[in-house]
Amino acid sequence: MPNRFLTKQRAVIKLYLINLVEQNKLYGLQFLQLLRKEFEPYGFRPTHSEIYKSLHELTKEGILYRTKKLKGEGQDGFQEIVIYQFTEDGYEKAKTYKKMVKQDLDRSKHMINKILKDNF
Amino acid sequence: MPNRFLTKQRAVIKLYLINLVEQNKLYGLQFLQLLRKEFEPYGFRPTHSEIYKSLHELTKEGILYRTKKLKGEGQDGFQEIVIYQFTEDGYEKAKTYKKMVKQDLDRSKHMINKILKDNF
Repeated sequence: MPNRFLTKQRAVIKLYLINLVEQNKLYGLQFLQLLRKEFEPYGFRPTHSEIYKSLHELTKEGILYRTKKLKGEGQDGFQEIVIYQFTEDGYEKAKTYKKMVKQDLDRSKHMINKILKDNF
Repeated sequence: MPNRFLTKQRAVIKLYLINLVEQNKLYGLQFLQLLRKEFEPYGFRPTHSEIYKSLHELTKEGILYRTKKLKGEGQDGFQEIVIYQFTEDGYEKAKTYKKMVKQDLDRSKHMINKILKDNF
């Protein structure tokens, strides 16, 4: 059995990334902006590098794949941008991963309640 | 403003150590055993080194001081053991620290609730 304190930042970011891809929000830069906005009231500001590492893990685990898309028409013609999408069995894998993180978040929630109860 | 994810293990262990010294449970080894027992159901097992580092910080911050005490009578006569107690203004300092950690735990609790709500 692993030795764990509260849920890791990496797991939470991967959870949100899966969620954003489900919602068809696909661009790397969009991920960073959306997550920063979500967590600003909580004093947490995810870094570019943390998002990048999380996307890399999700790709390595066969949940997402990286591809390119032409977008809009800028001054220099069409712009090629990187997007992320579910692999063929990625959505099923993502569901299993989400279930695991849900359990860990519930564990963390109970642990915080216990810590508060024990000390205050 | 610092960039923080969930409350750090170090802060929680320091909180419990302060609490144990308040309860007049003073021995290093006792700290480890008690904390391991408390967190076993949550899959978290604090290490010896983590407890030691936390005690070191509390000492450096002028909250606790380290002293020696003779205990019981073993085969080799009295045994000298290390104990921790509040410095003169340590209890006041501890109260300020506890208040800060309480705020951070409340923040973490709200953050976990938000994460669960956003993703499940």
